[in-house]
Amino acid sequence: MVRNEARRTALLDAAIDVLAEEGARGLTYRAIDARAQTPAGTASNYFANRDELMSEVMARVHVRLMPSDESVEQSLAMPRDKSLTVKFMHDIIKRADADKACYLAMMELRLEATRRPEIQRALTKTIADNLEFNVAFNDESKLPGDRLTVISLYFAMTGLIYERLTLPGVVEPMDLDELVEVLVDRAVGPD
Amino acid sequence: MVRNEARRTALLDAAIDVLAEEGARGLTYRAIDARAQTPAGTASNYFANRDELMSEVMARVHVRLMPSDESVEQSLAMPRDKSLTVKFMHDIIKRADADKACYLAMMELRLEATRRPEIQRALTKTIADNLEFNVAFNDESKLPGDRLTVISLYFAMTGLIYERLTLPGVVEPMDLDELVEVLVDRAVGPD
Repeated sequence: MVRNEARRTALLDAAIDVLAEEGARGLTYRAIDARAQTPAGTASNYFANRDELMSEVMARVHVRLMPSDESVEQSLAMPRDKSLTVKFMHDIIKRADADKACYLAMMELRLEATRRPEIQRALTKTIADNLEFNVAFNDESKLPGDRLTVISLYFAMTGLIYERLTLPGVVEPMDLDELVEVLVDRAVGPD
Repeated sequence: MVRNEARRTALLDAAIDVLAEEGARGLTYRAIDARAQTPAGTASNYFANRDELMSEVMARVHVRLMPSDESVEQSLAMPRDKSLTVKFMHDIIKRADADKACYLAMMELRLEATRRPEIQRALTKTIADNLEFNVAFNDESKLPGDRLTVISLYFAMTGLIYERLTLPGVVEPMDLDELVEVLVDRAVGPD
């Protein structure tokens, strides 16, 4: 396997664009090379097979959607109340809006996971670990609510972002600030 | 256009299976005919083009996922309290579990909607109408909570079902009864 990391990342970013634009079925070595403007044959030199390619795409999606350390640090300097949870939710939405291709690629991978057990296993682990991380983070950071707050918000935000990216017209008529406020308020429950 | 309604429905059901198993890119007239075991050329006689085919698939998905009148009637004979909302949510999950292909086909159509404005317009209308129907139904049936309860539950259930169907291992470790109870409790808010 070739070891030029910058080029590998460029190929993975191209794969994310192809997934978002063409769907899982459109993800071929040829399409990746065309998108990355690399010579034909490059992508196939970097990824041994489709499962390996998809698992590296997943890891790359994860990196691109993570908040920066700086942004988390800034947030944690704020009072640990409901408004901070609201801010975290808006940050997630902003990252999704700013990198739609990444989210759409993940949605394609999730559907592909229903057909490929290897991908399902890997994606499930990533998402489940992430959820457990958020439960622990909420607790350790003394953010409001409990484990079930994080789980309720997790599902609500999954649904909200899914809708915003695929059928934005369903969410658009609602006031997003009000909506997020309500989702957090209800998920946190009574004081 | 040919007008044998039973055959048209069989072709649409075949299209749903193809979408669920092969993805949007795999949805060809040829694949539909193969799946429906109809002579080559049949599907193309029933649907003038891809947009028309997809819009009829959507309508068929909608019909297949609707609760029966009998089931809604039975539910409405019960006391109008939180436990009835919980029951409705379990009914939705049961319908999704019992007809995974339908849900997966809809998820494929949603991703296709990001590429085809015609499909996005039609799907958005179906989903937004459905949400408004549920808001009105909750109110008229004197079910607990308010408009925002229905909207909160709507997003949470979208997220939950999305996860169950694509990455079941994330939800499986949780007790589903407890989870649904919590989602409803929090969405309804304090009495």
